[in-house]
Amino acid sequence: MPSVNEKRVLEDLYNLRKIGTYKTGVHRPTLTEDDMRARRWLKDELGKIGHDAHIDGVANVIGFSPASGPKLICGSHLETQNHAGWLDGALGVVYALEAARYLQETGAEFGVDVIAFSDEEGHFGELTGSNSLIGNVTEDMLDNAVDRTSGKKLRDALSDNGLSDVPRVILDADRYVGMFEAHIEQGPSLENDNKRIGIVTSIVGSWQYKLTAIGAQNHAGTTRMDIRKDAGAALMRIYNAIFEKFPHAAGPRTVWTVGKITLEPGAPSIVPGYAEMLFQFRDDDEAILDSLNELLGDIISAENENGSCEVSLSLQGRSFPALMDDKLQNLIEQAAENVAPGQHMRMPSGAGHDARTISQILPASMMFIPSIGGVSHHYTENSSDEDIALGARVFVDAVVRILQS
Amino acid sequence: MPSVNEKRVLEDLYNLRKIGTYKTGVHRPTLTEDDMRARRWLKDELGKIGHDAHIDGVANVIGFSPASGPKLICGSHLETQNHAGWLDGALGVVYALEAARYLQETGAEFGVDVIAFSDEEGHFGELTGSNSLIGNVTEDMLDNAVDRTSGKKLRDALSDNGLSDVPRVILDADRYVGMFEAHIEQGPSLENDNKRIGIVTSIVGSWQYKLTAIGAQNHAGTTRMDIRKDAGAALMRIYNAIFEKFPHAAGPRTVWTVGKITLEPGAPSIVPGYAEMLFQFRDDDEAILDSLNELLGDIISAENENGSCEVSLSLQGRSFPALMDDKLQNLIEQAAENVAPGQHMRMPSGAGHDARTISQILPASMMFIPSIGGVSHHYTENSSDEDIALGARVFVDAVVRILQS
Repeated sequence: MPSVNEKRVLEDLYNLRKIGTYKTGVHRPTLTEDDMRARRWLKDELGKIGHDAHIDGVANVIGFSPASGPKLICGSHLETQNHAGWLDGALGVVYALEAARYLQETGAEFGVDVIAFSDEEGHFGELTGSNSLIGNVTEDMLDNAVDRTSGKKLRDALSDNGLSDVPRVILDADRYVGMFEAHIEQGPSLENDNKRIGIVTSIVGSWQYKLTAIGAQNHAGTTRMDIRKDAGAALMRIYNAIFEKFPHAAGPRTVWTVGKITLEPGAPSIVPGYAEMLFQFRDDDEAILDSLNELLGDIISAENENGSCEVSLSLQGRSFPALMDDKLQNLIEQAAENVAPGQHMRMPSGAGHDARTISQILPASMMFIPSIGGVSHHYTENSSDEDIALGARVFVDAVVRILQS
Repeated sequence: MPSVNEKRVLEDLYNLRKIGTYKTGVHRPTLTEDDMRARRWLKDELGKIGHDAHIDGVANVIGFSPASGPKLICGSHLETQNHAGWLDGALGVVYALEAARYLQETGAEFGVDVIAFSDEEGHFGELTGSNSLIGNVTEDMLDNAVDRTSGKKLRDALSDNGLSDVPRVILDADRYVGMFEAHIEQGPSLENDNKRIGIVTSIVGSWQYKLTAIGAQNHAGTTRMDIRKDAGAALMRIYNAIFEKFPHAAGPRTVWTVGKITLEPGAPSIVPGYAEMLFQFRDDDEAILDSLNELLGDIISAENENGSCEVSLSLQGRSFPALMDDKLQNLIEQAAENVAPGQHMRMPSGAGHDARTISQILPASMMFIPSIGGVSHHYTENSSDEDIALGARVFVDAVVRILQS
């Protein structure tokens, strides 16, 4: 097998980092000017190797291979979280591009369609790009989507970028033998186990909630403790009940997180009359997710029975666990063993990815490379150049094995 | 004794409510346009009764009585908390104005100097106006003060209102027999005990802190629970330890409050790497304040020993309990018994007031009227017109008794 052009992979990633640089990372939210520059760069690169490349009506970038034989769809995403890392998303897109170039340069009769899914990072919703590609996004949903940071309407952002009248691509499942996405791990498991390649067995499901408490706003000096209706205190009792009780109902890899708390009015001398909390948990076992959901309901009911505030729970989003395709896992493992003997492991993905969406219509698969210190969603996110290069070799090897199988 | 003009008191309060109206309350932060309109209104009213009236270099409004005999200084404040009530501060200023008018109209030889202390509500600091009047505010402190909501510098706000070159008044303690402030209770004690006048025995001390936790920001899906350094979770453990342990160390009227919590970066899928919490407690017993301060330190030390984050404590402000003058309490009680027999009680003040500051140089005293439902620092704050009128009669009666004593 001819060698993969590792230098070109690193150069592409370095160039993408220049688009929207923030400290040592990247700030490239969906449909901003920098994000569109990155998308146009990919479209141009795909054109150069003879792909029929498009930016579709929700800003998915897709390059259809001219190859006549079996095809795999590969890629990840180009936009980033706010002020986040340079590899989250970009790595999987550049690997896919490299695989497509490799097949074109080696004159293979099979091919790779390269995809950059739009808005995996959820600035405007939940995996809008990949869901649109499998027909799960209605026009109404697009009408209602707004940027969670700026409040800008998705329709306006699309219009500003000339995408209002561009049709959305729907994937033809019959065209593909499967889907393959590479990504940084975004956690420390590979590093802790001294491995360099992760073969993903499943993608966890994630349930997200908003908890709100209504109490009575009052003066913090004159309102005695026994008559207060402190909305913040109500949510903090729930917070602690969650952290006390969840470990007993959770699996070994379950995670739960309170990412945001707001007390209103938020002044030092005022008892909060209103409070809000964003809470989520994740696991790859649906039975565990169900029982945690029930436990959360019980905790809130107990607070409402015993406390002085009115606490309510609203489900903000829910994704179900997805299994990665067994046969593809085996082939990726063979590639990893070929390129990096003994340096690979199977593992679930704690983060959501577009491969979960695509697994609804195609055999889907993923591989990880290590994240230094497990850091992600932060500008210091990084992976070593050696691991990036090794990952590219494994990725292309796996693509060839899958397409030859 | 001629009767107090209750109608004029209510009209003045209604007129002040029109300056910066917010729903049924008032939004009149220190040194905003509306706040300055209220201050100029008071200065004009004081001029009409022959007072030598000034707005000084930190926006205190003071009207010196032309009377030749003994003098009392009376007043409260005119600015409000953001989107807050119409009586918090204004009531005490209008009562003082009414007492001054009453003495002028009855040709008394003693007089009332009327004061509206600047920034009792602490937009730019801690009781800057009353502290300036007793010589406790340096030019440096004014240089560094900024509005906690807008971030505007105090110096710029003073300059915008033409106060940059105006001298600050320093009170001459020898001029006065004492200080007397009326205020709404801002709590439910009078209402609960079915009383209409509170004679204040002490003003609680208040200790205010900022707690910060430094952990490690990370992905909420891929970072296992056992290796997280969740800064939010660290502060929530402290929050709950406070609410569990403080009741055992507190007195019967101690209060403690978390008014604000911030998790950074504050996104649903990111483990907070930094968290901040504003915490305060109040009591009128210094020994209790000391022991709560020690307990708080112990709680944080325990978290730092057992937890994975680095929590630190910074004292943001500290006021000491102040006793109100015994003799003045007795005279106010006599006035209350005269006007509203059996409808008064002695009580501590859970809120801080300018009378605490002034008690450092003069015998100081306070009286309260009931707050409906105990509500304050909210636009629904209110007192009945009957209680406002009754309070005015007691206030003027007490002023006369104090000045005659």
